[in-house]
Amino acid sequence: MNRETGTKPAVPADIEIARQVDKLPIVEVAGQLGLTEEDLELYGTYKAKLSYDLWDRIRTRPDGKLILVTAISPTPAGEGKSTVTVGLGQALNRLKKKATVALREPSLGPSMGIKGGAAGGGYAQVLPMEDINLHFTGDFHAITSAHNAISAMIDNHLHQGNQQGIDPRRIVWKRVIDLNDRALRNVVVGLGGKAHGVPREDGFDITVASEVMAILCLAQDLEDLKERIGRTVVAYRYDRSPVTVSDLGVEGAATLLLKDALRPNLVQTAENTPAFVHGGPFANIAHGCNSLNATRHALKLSEYTVTEAGFGADLGAEKFIHIKSRAGGLQPNVVVMVATVRALKMHGGVPKGELTQPNLQALRQGMANLERHLETIHHFGLPCVVAINRFSDDTEEELTYIRRWCEERGVPAARTEVWAHGGAGGEELAQEVIRLAEAGTARSHFLYSLEQPIRDKIAAIAEKVYGAGRVAFYAKAEERIKACDAHGWDKLPICMAKTPFSLSDNPSLLGRPEAFTLHIQDIRPSIGAGFLVALTENVMTMPGLPKQPAALNMDIDSAGRVYGLF
Amino acid sequence: MNRETGTKPAVPADIEIARQVDKLPIVEVAGQLGLTEEDLELYGTYKAKLSYDLWDRIRTRPDGKLILVTAISPTPAGEGKSTVTVGLGQALNRLKKKATVALREPSLGPSMGIKGGAAGGGYAQVLPMEDINLHFTGDFHAITSAHNAISAMIDNHLHQGNQQGIDPRRIVWKRVIDLNDRALRNVVVGLGGKAHGVPREDGFDITVASEVMAILCLAQDLEDLKERIGRTVVAYRYDRSPVTVSDLGVEGAATLLLKDALRPNLVQTAENTPAFVHGGPFANIAHGCNSLNATRHALKLSEYTVTEAGFGADLGAEKFIHIKSRAGGLQPNVVVMVATVRALKMHGGVPKGELTQPNLQALRQGMANLERHLETIHHFGLPCVVAINRFSDDTEEELTYIRRWCEERGVPAARTEVWAHGGAGGEELAQEVIRLAEAGTARSHFLYSLEQPIRDKIAAIAEKVYGAGRVAFYAKAEERIKACDAHGWDKLPICMAKTPFSLSDNPSLLGRPEAFTLHIQDIRPSIGAGFLVALTENVMTMPGLPKQPAALNMDIDSAGRVYGLF
Repeated sequence: MNRETGTKPAVPADIEIARQVDKLPIVEVAGQLGLTEEDLELYGTYKAKLSYDLWDRIRTRPDGKLILVTAISPTPAGEGKSTVTVGLGQALNRLKKKATVALREPSLGPSMGIKGGAAGGGYAQVLPMEDINLHFTGDFHAITSAHNAISAMIDNHLHQGNQQGIDPRRIVWKRVIDLNDRALRNVVVGLGGKAHGVPREDGFDITVASEVMAILCLAQDLEDLKERIGRTVVAYRYDRSPVTVSDLGVEGAATLLLKDALRPNLVQTAENTPAFVHGGPFANIAHGCNSLNATRHALKLSEYTVTEAGFGADLGAEKFIHIKSRAGGLQPNVVVMVATVRALKMHGGVPKGELTQPNLQALRQGMANLERHLETIHHFGLPCVVAINRFSDDTEEELTYIRRWCEERGVPAARTEVWAHGGAGGEELAQEVIRLAEAGTARSHFLYSLEQPIRDKIAAIAEKVYGAGRVAFYAKAEERIKACDAHGWDKLPICMAKTPFSLSDNPSLLGRPEAFTLHIQDIRPSIGAGFLVALTENVMTMPGLPKQPAALNMDIDSAGRVYGLF
Repeated sequence: MNRETGTKPAVPADIEIARQVDKLPIVEVAGQLGLTEEDLELYGTYKAKLSYDLWDRIRTRPDGKLILVTAISPTPAGEGKSTVTVGLGQALNRLKKKATVALREPSLGPSMGIKGGAAGGGYAQVLPMEDINLHFTGDFHAITSAHNAISAMIDNHLHQGNQQGIDPRRIVWKRVIDLNDRALRNVVVGLGGKAHGVPREDGFDITVASEVMAILCLAQDLEDLKERIGRTVVAYRYDRSPVTVSDLGVEGAATLLLKDALRPNLVQTAENTPAFVHGGPFANIAHGCNSLNATRHALKLSEYTVTEAGFGADLGAEKFIHIKSRAGGLQPNVVVMVATVRALKMHGGVPKGELTQPNLQALRQGMANLERHLETIHHFGLPCVVAINRFSDDTEEELTYIRRWCEERGVPAARTEVWAHGGAGGEELAQEVIRLAEAGTARSHFLYSLEQPIRDKIAAIAEKVYGAGRVAFYAKAEERIKACDAHGWDKLPICMAKTPFSLSDNPSLLGRPEAFTLHIQDIRPSIGAGFLVALTENVMTMPGLPKQPAALNMDIDSAGRVYGLF
């Protein structure tokens, strides 16, 4: 969770709560889903991966209800979306609905940088948080290995004679590491003379930005995984034709390295609700949702699956529908829109330092941001409930204002206090979710078809989701679109890379910007993942560490007690 | 195992054997050691880590017998030392001795490069080999993360103002990756301008060459681990004073990342003998033995612990005694010296391509190498048995010659065929081992004391172990010795970095070179690990991939069946 959401003194630190909670053995948690030890590969007492055989046994079952948790345009600290997701799952179980949650795995880099950990928070977190925040079941390490094995094969290919005719200036496959390490953003490799490879410019991304991560999160099974890895474009030849992983013959080894990482992880929440925590693609240059595989399993194993998508509804929810749901045939039943008083005040013009001060006027103005996101969900044909996620500094007047605003527009709303009270603090929300799900009004549809030209697909998102007046394509983007058309990559969905802080591509345009121009700078094909990334800015794919990294507070004592993960 | 040892057509491929074997659930294997599920952290059905609490319960027990498996100076393909270690453990169990084996974990890099896997071979391998050869329980990934987290903190320190006054030209802490990747040997990081760090020369080692790996393998517990990491020297200031991990404040985070990696892994052999497979420090710039922690646990839990040390007795056994045993108070009872017909013929002057041809004359001349290694073990005060490890091309005459040679000198010898026959092929060896162990003649002593000056310690190893006439120190080494003296690092043991193919520092001097000069080029202090590395050559700490990497043969099918690990 974000530290800023943890200011309420009555609630102990996440790690304290994590220690106090009576976790059930994961075999018992799995038992709630009708699974036995045979269906699991245990990783200690409290973590497991699902067996490969399980899917064949459950695939013909009907799906449960799919609840997608999204948010308004967030503050940099986040609005507690993961926490609401976990808390809603707990609340549904309290109301006797068999519910699971499906979340992304946290990345080690940000945990050691600013965040200190990310697995929900307070009484709405997933456990064991100290493992989930560190190596967990090794999925990210496997992805790092598979990715870098491909890199090593590319450089070895250059070194051993370059039979493919790869242009070393056009290698688009960087290396990855699961750390925040700005000094690795731009490097030169292959120095030291003839025996040590071919010198060239290179760079490292953080592992969550790896296309292997996006692939793993969209792959249906081992076969699909291998096929996707095989068709991934890693470089271009001197004749400008693309070089794929298959051309290097390493898709088998890379898939082998991912054989366990592909299997969903099962853990539990602070109230023993089964939780699938699996995959963690970056929400800007990738689609930012937990694995399709985990979501599909959850839908077969429970009545309600509560899942989240990264950033606000303009990014996460849009990609959830157009990329993940399209790839996996998913059909969300209800959308939960997380809104906070402080984010709405920010959209109403309050500077970041003053968000804890009551300001009804700013709140009123900021509602335009929520309004726009609600329209988007409406465009998608999905019923929506606003979750007013309470923070300790919120006043009763502010909270009531949001609720009234929703009532006046016929939008269901519920207050959530799951961080402080766990599932009990989410019962009102859960009731609304059940009501909407049972009403069965969801008629999900896409806002663009894959057959449309690339420019039109981008324009559809810009206009129908962001509210842009027009889209301007930079020369480089135009050129890339032509190349994509020529290579036959024009039938892929679009993965937008855009600031989450504004509906526009300008992070300082808060609230509900109108008639703005969206600027597309570049298009990057992710052929293995199966989408074209449209960049509205230079996306940072390798974060740096702050002056005082969270790693400085991390420790373990001689008895194995963990400190500094919160 | 090495492919060259796998030429006998009657024995199926390692992966085939691995599939055929009836593995026991690891809980049952642990049961053979008197352990219950409480003492384990399960990683699936067939792998486990020992719990932290176990040591406190067993620490006061008497130690079992410690059997150290070493070898003559090997051929590049190796003489089957791991295979003999596993087979001997199996044979001891067949003879009703409660035996365990303690091995290093294989490194992913070489597995994807030339070797294709390393976990013993034939009917004397550890299982599940496909997991052990890939990510296993994540130890190496944790080491990679901890190591690179320290690297990121160093570069962040430079970027954020360099309060410590670190000289960027004197950063001795490189980055690591668990792959063979020559293009990463020499890199420049921090390029791209002011926002992206401070440019400097850097490089990547393979993870097994990380000092963190050596530290983990020598640490007694979490506290010792943290202390060792804290005192590790990563750079020097402009004033030439050393900068440690503690100076950067990241020893707590690095230790936290290693909290599970420190715990020994338990698996089983092809005949269900309990096997501790844990840690894998490089045998040249580190000490090349499995973790002290695993060996200590094995000694408390079994009557016989069979373990191995890297390369020949001049390297592995010497370091096992002087570094690992000294650090952990270990006392080997019997040494097993693995010798093969083909390696002895090589030492007798036969070129590598003709080693499968019978050549008694060359064999006779090559015995000098074995003789010299036996003298070394004698110097250490340890009883020794020669294990004549049979390969399919060996003639009866050659095998008999070695045995007679041993008999004439009163040296116990036994033929082993554990690769083809498992424990049954090692019973003669096991009987000799039992006889020597029960005779209790071991009087182990060190060949140098820690109080001696650095030059004298090196000279003691050169003369008493290698048979060198004199030691020549290069100017750089002289300078470093002075610096070590000045920093108070002169009381540490020596870790020799030398070619394994010759007793000298010249790999082409086979057999038993006499009166040669050993050249010490450089001294590298590994303060966390607790030794000074004396380099006789430029040690390769990052292997490259061959023209046809083993990775090209690796694959997994849609049913999860694994190919290309042998």
